[in-house]
Amino acid sequence: MRRAGFVLAFAAAPLLAQNVPDEIIQRELAASQAYETLSHLTDDIGQRLSGSANAAAAVRFTTERFRAWGIDVRNERVAVPHWVRGREEASLPTQHNQKIVLTALGGSVATPAEGITADVVEVTSFDELKQLGAKLRGKIVFFNVPMDMELVRARRSFDAYSKAVVYRGAGASRAAEYGAVAALIRSVGSDSLRTPHTGAMRYDPKQPKIPAAAMAAEDAMLVHRLLARRERVRMHLALTPRLLPDVMSANVVAEIRGSEHPEEIVLVGAHLDSWDLGTGAIDDGSGVAMVMETMRLIKQMNLKPRRTIRAVLFMNEENGLNGGRQYWASHKHEKHVAAIETDAGAAAPTGFSTTLKADALAALQARTKPLAAVNADRFEVTPETGADTSFIVESGVPGFGLVPDPLHYFDYHHTPADTLDKIDPKELAQDSAAVAALAWILAN
Amino acid sequence: MRRAGFVLAFAAAPLLAQNVPDEIIQRELAASQAYETLSHLTDDIGQRLSGSANAAAAVRFTTERFRAWGIDVRNERVAVPHWVRGREEASLPTQHNQKIVLTALGGSVATPAEGITADVVEVTSFDELKQLGAKLRGKIVFFNVPMDMELVRARRSFDAYSKAVVYRGAGASRAAEYGAVAALIRSVGSDSLRTPHTGAMRYDPKQPKIPAAAMAAEDAMLVHRLLARRERVRMHLALTPRLLPDVMSANVVAEIRGSEHPEEIVLVGAHLDSWDLGTGAIDDGSGVAMVMETMRLIKQMNLKPRRTIRAVLFMNEENGLNGGRQYWASHKHEKHVAAIETDAGAAAPTGFSTTLKADALAALQARTKPLAAVNADRFEVTPETGADTSFIVESGVPGFGLVPDPLHYFDYHHTPADTLDKIDPKELAQDSAAVAALAWILAN
Repeated sequence: MRRAGFVLAFAAAPLLAQNVPDEIIQRELAASQAYETLSHLTDDIGQRLSGSANAAAAVRFTTERFRAWGIDVRNERVAVPHWVRGREEASLPTQHNQKIVLTALGGSVATPAEGITADVVEVTSFDELKQLGAKLRGKIVFFNVPMDMELVRARRSFDAYSKAVVYRGAGASRAAEYGAVAALIRSVGSDSLRTPHTGAMRYDPKQPKIPAAAMAAEDAMLVHRLLARRERVRMHLALTPRLLPDVMSANVVAEIRGSEHPEEIVLVGAHLDSWDLGTGAIDDGSGVAMVMETMRLIKQMNLKPRRTIRAVLFMNEENGLNGGRQYWASHKHEKHVAAIETDAGAAAPTGFSTTLKADALAALQARTKPLAAVNADRFEVTPETGADTSFIVESGVPGFGLVPDPLHYFDYHHTPADTLDKIDPKELAQDSAAVAALAWILAN
Repeated sequence: MRRAGFVLAFAAAPLLAQNVPDEIIQRELAASQAYETLSHLTDDIGQRLSGSANAAAAVRFTTERFRAWGIDVRNERVAVPHWVRGREEASLPTQHNQKIVLTALGGSVATPAEGITADVVEVTSFDELKQLGAKLRGKIVFFNVPMDMELVRARRSFDAYSKAVVYRGAGASRAAEYGAVAALIRSVGSDSLRTPHTGAMRYDPKQPKIPAAAMAAEDAMLVHRLLARRERVRMHLALTPRLLPDVMSANVVAEIRGSEHPEEIVLVGAHLDSWDLGTGAIDDGSGVAMVMETMRLIKQMNLKPRRTIRAVLFMNEENGLNGGRQYWASHKHEKHVAAIETDAGAAAPTGFSTTLKADALAALQARTKPLAAVNADRFEVTPETGADTSFIVESGVPGFGLVPDPLHYFDYHHTPADTLDKIDPKELAQDSAAVAALAWILAN
């Protein structure tokens, strides 16, 4: 009965098709529920690292919420790694046992429980690593590569990130090749109050696995200063992470079937898992809230898209990408016409990245003018538009990525400080409006 | 021989008395060693909490450095508390074991090793605490009083601090009066990346001692949001600090005797101890560096002050003030004519606070114009000019306190982020020049 009343209320003032994106945006700005969704994900559930009880709680919560909104939803099984952070202790016996603040990189192996103690050698590139070669045997290698803050200030934060993060991903195995016993990086981030930034690393199966951690910027600068003064720097390092057996988790997949071409799918996705240090508000709880808001708006406005709009809350973006991979393995036979991903925070929208080329983009832009209401009508052509949807986009499906203002994204990224207070509810609503309106336009 | 040569070099270009403050300032700006002194204190020795091995190392290092500079120096024994931080763990079982970042307040007793679990009740004042009264029995009381950021932005940071910090000092005993089992505050600070700010608390001997800790601002905001949504918030809290037997430590006292009135003392002081989370760069390693620089300049310029200039590096300012108290107990029979303290960071100087009254201040200001070269010629009359010298100043001796720009002081104060990278060597040299020049002027 309540739903019938809802429909009638809208029937009294029918929406003209060309006005729908405007209406979606105005409705979202007036009565967004995105912040409330995000509050539950971050304040009540908290961190959602793959394999954790909290990640499972997030699957249940989002599934139940879609269902409560009357939206078809299912869980699609995904096996995920279950890496658990342990103790993280470091100090410099050569400097009065000065404490070093660091955090294990995701996937790192442990040191022996009692720790290791070794001399620290600093390098600033893989070339320098190679030159030192055999001198690295038995040493802790420190890759001292800060983010380029000029790029960050020019709002090219993601370029700055890409340049620095290669040492996080590959540093340990590259150092292990020369006999290093552990690898450290300077945290990849744009701010610090002694704040470590974690993130994934990969082992090269051809090399021995050595422990890997990120020092806070302050600690990286300290070790650099000591070595620059030609002091000997020995570090005691104890990391006790564990890789437990894989856990069966899930992507949460919700959809509103298309009225004319239900077989054509516009996918809108974000990732449900987070790192374990913070509560994953910017990365990527806010993206989850935007995707859910997209579905809620279209359902509650009783809109009927011509194509199917499918929301996917991917599991395990952070340390495996198993959700994105599994989704495509199961769904590549289906006809995807577009994939929108939102995984770049919730600052004020500036537009979208897209893989759409010249003519097709021009045709789309003729219909995306309503996005100007939230400053999201700018499209920048990029080769990649998101990690979870990369499998889809690489197969030729047009990709779109929401681009919130990136200036402060890496201040909080992968740190304990990625918490709800960093989110402006108005900006989150603007982002949600942009994603929902673009999804609607692409589906019609 | 080298010292004789040094003296001769100066004899060739004798300083006119009225030019000395200018010369001190120019020499410090041209060839400061303050940053190098501070580097050793912070990078090599690190945290210097009273009673720690590192605090003892700081006593040795500063004593030896004065001696190497040819300055008379002695250690004056001071018994200090030896409080050692233990594990600090908190989580919310009512919110999926959401982690809470906090740090024990200095002097706090421990919880049982397995921790306690209790409901959290929020108050914003002692009045509200009193109103709740018996409802607080068995609860964890959370004093949610942020620093007033408008005051901070108006550069009245120390006023904002004073208003908020009363709950840190007295909150635990006030809550214990009503049967609370632990007390939490919101960290008293002006910035946070999930950053706890520690600091001293006092127990009222009439009340039971309950554990006390400071949550990071983010965690305080989280608990506030949950309670504002009328959720039940239970917290599991485990703190294992220990109060070990007192340790015999020392004030480091160095002096350059006056040529005409050696019995008249101009004291210049800072504190050698620090909190244990950071490395005490702004609080108060930089003050120590300024005081040492004052003595080095006067000695190496071969200046002969008319009065004695005495440097005191006080031990235990942070959690007891035993050094300041002990100094005055031993030296109150001596004639102190002024006490300069520097314990407010090392940002660019803005002037001095002083207890000097109208006429006396006007007379002094006729001679402090050279301080304008480092923007330190402004004097603000205040009732207090420093903690360690408060015993001296309360007895009627004129007090002076260096006032660096306070805007960012409480961003780092008592946090792990109080590290050398927060110091600008040029600003530290300006501060050192200001302190040295004022000491010289007061001694002549």
